[in-house]
Amino acid sequence: MTITPPALSVFETLESEVRSYCRGWPAVFDRAQGSYLYDEDGHTYLDFFAGAGSLNYGHNNAVLKRALLDYLERDGIVHGLDMATTAKRAFLETFQNVVLRPRDLPYKVMFPGPTGTNAVEAALKLARKVKGREAIVSFTNAFHGMSLGSLAVTGNAFKRAGAGIPLVHGTPMPFDNYLDGQVPDFLWFERLLEDQGSGLNKPAAVIVETIQGEGGINVARAEWLRGLAELCKRRDMLLIVDDIQMGCGRTGAFFSFEDAGITPDIVTLSKSISGYGLPMSLTLFKPELDVWEPGEHNGTFRGNNPAFVTATAALDTYWADGQMEKQTLARGEQIEQALLAICAEHADADATYRGRGMVWGLEFPDPARATRVCRRAFELGLVLETSGPQSEVVKLLPALTTTPDDLDEGLRTLARAVRETA
Amino acid sequence: MTITPPALSVFETLESEVRSYCRGWPAVFDRAQGSYLYDEDGHTYLDFFAGAGSLNYGHNNAVLKRALLDYLERDGIVHGLDMATTAKRAFLETFQNVVLRPRDLPYKVMFPGPTGTNAVEAALKLARKVKGREAIVSFTNAFHGMSLGSLAVTGNAFKRAGAGIPLVHGTPMPFDNYLDGQVPDFLWFERLLEDQGSGLNKPAAVIVETIQGEGGINVARAEWLRGLAELCKRRDMLLIVDDIQMGCGRTGAFFSFEDAGITPDIVTLSKSISGYGLPMSLTLFKPELDVWEPGEHNGTFRGNNPAFVTATAALDTYWADGQMEKQTLARGEQIEQALLAICAEHADADATYRGRGMVWGLEFPDPARATRVCRRAFELGLVLETSGPQSEVVKLLPALTTTPDDLDEGLRTLARAVRETA
Amino acid sequence: MTITPPALSVFETLESEVRSYCRGWPAVFDRAQGSYLYDEDGHTYLDFFAGAGSLNYGHNNAVLKRALLDYLERDGIVHGLDMATTAKRAFLETFQNVVLRPRDLPYKVMFPGPTGTNAVEAALKLARKVKGREAIVSFTNAFHGMSLGSLAVTGNAFKRAGAGIPLVHGTPMPFDNYLDGQVPDFLWFERLLEDQGSGLNKPAAVIVETIQGEGGINVARAEWLRGLAELCKRRDMLLIVDDIQMGCGRTGAFFSFEDAGITPDIVTLSKSISGYGLPMSLTLFKPELDVWEPGEHNGTFRGNNPAFVTATAALDTYWADGQMEKQTLARGEQIEQALLAICAEHADADATYRGRGMVWGLEFPDPARATRVCRRAFELGLVLETSGPQSEVVKLLPALTTTPDDLDEGLRTLARAVRETA
Amino acid sequence: MTITPPALSVFETLESEVRSYCRGWPAVFDRAQGSYLYDEDGHTYLDFFAGAGSLNYGHNNAVLKRALLDYLERDGIVHGLDMATTAKRAFLETFQNVVLRPRDLPYKVMFPGPTGTNAVEAALKLARKVKGREAIVSFTNAFHGMSLGSLAVTGNAFKRAGAGIPLVHGTPMPFDNYLDGQVPDFLWFERLLEDQGSGLNKPAAVIVETIQGEGGINVARAEWLRGLAELCKRRDMLLIVDDIQMGCGRTGAFFSFEDAGITPDIVTLSKSISGYGLPMSLTLFKPELDVWEPGEHNGTFRGNNPAFVTATAALDTYWADGQMEKQTLARGEQIEQALLAICAEHADADATYRGRGMVWGLEFPDPARATRVCRRAFELGLVLETSGPQSEVVKLLPALTTTPDDLDEGLRTLARAVRETA
Repeated sequence: MTITPPALSVFETLESEVRSYCRGWPAVFDRAQGSYLYDEDGHTYLDFFAGAGSLNYGHNNAVLKRALLDYLERDGIVHGLDMATTAKRAFLETFQNVVLRPRDLPYKVMFPGPTGTNAVEAALKLARKVKGREAIVSFTNAFHGMSLGSLAVTGNAFKRAGAGIPLVHGTPMPFDNYLDGQVPDFLWFERLLEDQGSGLNKPAAVIVETIQGEGGINVARAEWLRGLAELCKRRDMLLIVDDIQMGCGRTGAFFSFEDAGITPDIVTLSKSISGYGLPMSLTLFKPELDVWEPGEHNGTFRGNNPAFVTATAALDTYWADGQMEKQTLARGEQIEQALLAICAEHADADATYRGRGMVWGLEFPDPARATRVCRRAFELGLVLETSGPQSEVVKLLPALTTTPDDLDEGLRTLARAVRETA
Repeated sequence: MTITPPALSVFETLESEVRSYCRGWPAVFDRAQGSYLYDEDGHTYLDFFAGAGSLNYGHNNAVLKRALLDYLERDGIVHGLDMATTAKRAFLETFQNVVLRPRDLPYKVMFPGPTGTNAVEAALKLARKVKGREAIVSFTNAFHGMSLGSLAVTGNAFKRAGAGIPLVHGTPMPFDNYLDGQVPDFLWFERLLEDQGSGLNKPAAVIVETIQGEGGINVARAEWLRGLAELCKRRDMLLIVDDIQMGCGRTGAFFSFEDAGITPDIVTLSKSISGYGLPMSLTLFKPELDVWEPGEHNGTFRGNNPAFVTATAALDTYWADGQMEKQTLARGEQIEQALLAICAEHADADATYRGRGMVWGLEFPDPARATRVCRRAFELGLVLETSGPQSEVVKLLPALTTTPDDLDEGLRTLARAVRETA
Repeated sequence: MTITPPALSVFETLESEVRSYCRGWPAVFDRAQGSYLYDEDGHTYLDFFAGAGSLNYGHNNAVLKRALLDYLERDGIVHGLDMATTAKRAFLETFQNVVLRPRDLPYKVMFPGPTGTNAVEAALKLARKVKGREAIVSFTNAFHGMSLGSLAVTGNAFKRAGAGIPLVHGTPMPFDNYLDGQVPDFLWFERLLEDQGSGLNKPAAVIVETIQGEGGINVARAEWLRGLAELCKRRDMLLIVDDIQMGCGRTGAFFSFEDAGITPDIVTLSKSISGYGLPMSLTLFKPELDVWEPGEHNGTFRGNNPAFVTATAALDTYWADGQMEKQTLARGEQIEQALLAICAEHADADATYRGRGMVWGLEFPDPARATRVCRRAFELGLVLETSGPQSEVVKLLPALTTTPDDLDEGLRTLARAVRETA
Repeated sequence: MTITPPALSVFETLESEVRSYCRGWPAVFDRAQGSYLYDEDGHTYLDFFAGAGSLNYGHNNAVLKRALLDYLERDGIVHGLDMATTAKRAFLETFQNVVLRPRDLPYKVMFPGPTGTNAVEAALKLARKVKGREAIVSFTNAFHGMSLGSLAVTGNAFKRAGAGIPLVHGTPMPFDNYLDGQVPDFLWFERLLEDQGSGLNKPAAVIVETIQGEGGINVARAEWLRGLAELCKRRDMLLIVDDIQMGCGRTGAFFSFEDAGITPDIVTLSKSISGYGLPMSLTLFKPELDVWEPGEHNGTFRGNNPAFVTATAALDTYWADGQMEKQTLARGEQIEQALLAICAEHADADATYRGRGMVWGLEFPDPARATRVCRRAFELGLVLETSGPQSEVVKLLPALTTTPDDLDEGLRTLARAVRETA
């Protein structure tokens, strides 16, 4: 496929220099369906990025689309602040019946504003309020968002520098395997907590991703997560799982922490919760933590009812039984086999891979290689992104609904891109 | 109208105690059209709140709805991160042609995530980065959002307490007329700036609303705004106008600061910018301030393309000429007359009113009265909210598209509610 | 007097650039007695600076010297941490009998480390602990010290910049007459406190100097201080008077707040409390505020016993009756007359003067003039310093024990210096 | 020895509850000479605490006393701000000739106010100013002082809580052997620094004690200190050695870091620098770091000239040759032998000992034991203190001038106290 220069002028002249993804994918996209994006010049792209994990059911999923169109056509409430609406009730009931009850999760549900960072801000506020402490522990290479509260517990130095003020009240701890297995899990964290002279302000909460998506597809082991949950309980800290990118089935189960058998105190969801790429987010917490005063945290768009409609349809369609989870795990094996083959073929490049469910990373010791692979893949019609502190990891995040054939095609294109960037 | 108890159970058992508006309006809303809301029990409500200013063109505006449905039906990109899309280009071009160029405004446009607080966070980050200083000056009774950066420049003590950490780096100054005319404008602020011993950390920027919506419908005079702009320029501080609630025509002109003849360095827009109540926000700034690095601030939903579609339709429909502005000012006079009459009728209650365009406040010295008025109005089928630090102000925020007859009906209902709560 | 270049080389090569006073007074001082300093080149200087207020009883006061020598000779405890010692008991008993009881002041006494900034740090810690709040209100042009806690409530921008971190948790309010009488006292402060939407974090305490020495000899009126005390009481904030420079009789009474008839909750003393220029400081507070845990604040040199010995001797010698206070007021009148004459003589320079007791300031609209006056005075054998944010005020701070003749000589030298710098 | 109840009433009624040492040593001390303290009831105590390390040459050392008395008698300058004085010049020249030059140390000398915490505050300010960064790395169980800047890098949770505000800008790292040898030195620290996604704000400086006195007599190995110095250099961080307690010969060499062969960028000295227990402190730094503006950091008592006099005498007397260092090491061996014997005798108590030069710790797994040992020792006429986060370590800090016989007596008393508290 040849890319003719797209007509980008207004983006280049009027939009801020802060724009980023559009720089790596120089095309003007027009339509999308399932796993495919179409630009205005007639090119087709297989999407292995899925809106950074916001499109687990693919672009413009037909079932969700029907529900959304019906709702809009009949003038259902679109903007609802935090008023009670029929669409919100349907979502709440479905979320309770399809997600919470079968998993025996006791959570209360908060609509904190429809972006991930807002869900994290609400989680941190609540943890601080409940515990009466200000300190939060996060992990190396964590990503939790761009507003000041979330940014303070995000690892990336470049993003942090954007704050313009010193980011405080957060302390990083080593994520699973950060020290390459040389150190027992939580040795440092535990010592800091038990020692009254350690200098660590006693944390209100620990915030963790089970797999760090932006941080480089770093996968926490189930036993590490259990160890963390146990540590939090023993040391009177709340455990917040930020499941914004890894929740909604990305790793197989609906919540990414289910496999580990833990029940976090607070969970954040966003990205794929609406199912259709519409802004929506949730902060879930154990009922005894629901000490909010009415209106203590609010936001104009926390009642984005069209998102409730597609979210309800998505839960009904994909999560009423265990099929989706099984399928994701099967697709995951397909990806793993392909990555195994790529790494074997390029043993000289010392590439490694890791992942779970349908989120995978392919890391190159030479960080520039990952960027070159993604660039070449795009030329070949495959949308891929890098992640990790030095953009050293090619990140695979296809829609969960990607067909085995499409998955195969994309993985072959990836293999070719790796080959052609050697 | 009699309100039968609505079926609220799942909201009460599953949703967090943080919910607020739904408590004052005990109904389950189902549909909406123009200035009317309909609940599932068959009741109709005239809406004088308009999604806290997010629905300037009414609920489910027919023109915008058509554009939205067409776009969704043809599988236009829904979730676009910050990729270039045809819908985004159309919005940018229209925003440039209809809004920026006719007003000779040189702004670059940033999509910072689709909520108001995210637009404010981006504005504050940018100001700090540009000036290399951390301090921000805000005003008494300001409201800028709930994430930590925005909350630190928000006045409300109850909201601030929710942070769970000391909110720092912001210093409040008196808003226009805060000291009841006893003090020359900016006397205190100017002295702090000119005195090297004042103890004020030199501010990077000043953030201001032209009318404080949440703060109690406090209206800044044009000369005060000009004085502030002049002070900022002279003292090398950036001027940020948070036009999230008052922009998009609420006061008449598209931007609420146009009448004052000032050009802020940074402007935030959200709420009614999409026109359809869909999450969207913009941070605008002078081109010389565009020092962002690519990706230095990001967010999953900053490319909410359906919102771009309705935003484009709204600009084309309502802002291609000066009709909307004239109409808003005319409707504003209608409201003012009614408030004048109400205050005259209840001279004993010492009520006062104030406002501009189609945003008005009716204040009672007895704060409980405002809440009673809103409650009674709801029983009478009128949706109204209070604002101000003690909820002492009845806030009128009808859609700009409200017909004179509907406006008249609502104002008569308000008058009755005032009468019946005497 | 001609100043031959003093032998300063080791100071210039080995001592840090941070040295300051020595730059304005290029001499190597060797001995001192009463109001006179003697340099190693045989020059004599009349001292109108008195160790920045640390030598209220003059240099090497003979009575104190005898007590000190006796104590050292008999091997009294020199370094005592916070152990009970006979010297400390003598001081405590004398302080109680001579200072606290006659004034009906109920204070507990804390030895917080022997410098002023340490006394302020202890005061701020205690206030925050008692009230459970972090915010402190200070005043424009306040000076409280150089360690981070004290610096955060100090006004001078140059000193603040030295912190290297944003100084937070403090908010400046206008000192008495800061806005030139255009604004009623405490109008702004009171509004901020009463308004739940003002954005001011509720303060734990207010810290104030009755006369701002470093800030430019700004004298608070007694009624302003009473208004402040009343405001603190009514709004549940602790009142801290930093009496480090103005206490120990500088203004006439032992405490500078006595004239105003107020009883601060917390008082800091240092500088002249030892009487001999030895490091010592006290933090005094009402007994109900004594919620310290043992050792919660400590410091190696808080038991500088030689200072206790001279402090005891000073209290016994000068404060057993009311003579010192009367004498100081009389000397103050002598100074005032001289300043009146100087200002009258130089009406064209628009100089103004202000002060109380034996602390006075002579301000020139042209800031450079004050520095020139002090430089010329030094050449003429008179040690004087400037103060104020732009060093625009010549500060008169002679020892309280200065004889009328010496005072007269110094004032005539000052008049000559003013004349010769016209 | 029987302790009759001392006359403590004024201490108990007038002095704040914050007093601490006096609680463990219920006596009123009157005189002191060399290694002995005498209370007013005629009891004699052998001092193994030495003013928390401020009395390395013993109480009221005769040589220093003579110099001090002479100076005071001849009316030498006592309070000198930062004026050039003959006493200060003598000190600077002696410090240069006796301390800096022979060790080839290039430091500039700053007099930051006469307490340890002030020296640390100055060091931190300077490091932040030089590097333009706010973050500081400190170590577990560090102790640097009680003012807010120093307290933020101090480990003890009880002391930190006294701040009343969240202490930020500091991050603790594991001190040498903190993780019991399970982790390679600096593994965690190095990973945080090299990883752009670690979340650690890049530090301006690292502050470290070579032996943590308050933290429990934790001794850093020379190779660990060298590793730290190398890491600081490689990662562009300044190395601050806080030698307030361990400097001035406590470990043998004048500076405690000499053995490791490192040259810190900044060094703080206080406690024994005056030699006589008089308040004095120094901040030393490499000349290229001397970016202070005149007066950017100041303090009333930074020119405590009597301390300069005794400091000069102490350097001249004890540091002109290498005798003191040799003697300290020999005395240290004497202590070590005694501790070895005590631990062997009480193998069941699992006591361990550690130390260097003349600073040693005897740790008991049962923390209450250490307190009991000190209490019993005091009854037996030996002044001893505990240290460590749980006061679990008996701390031996005798004057460097303690005779072998006195040392032996004290060690035998300690052995008896251990025996009698079994």
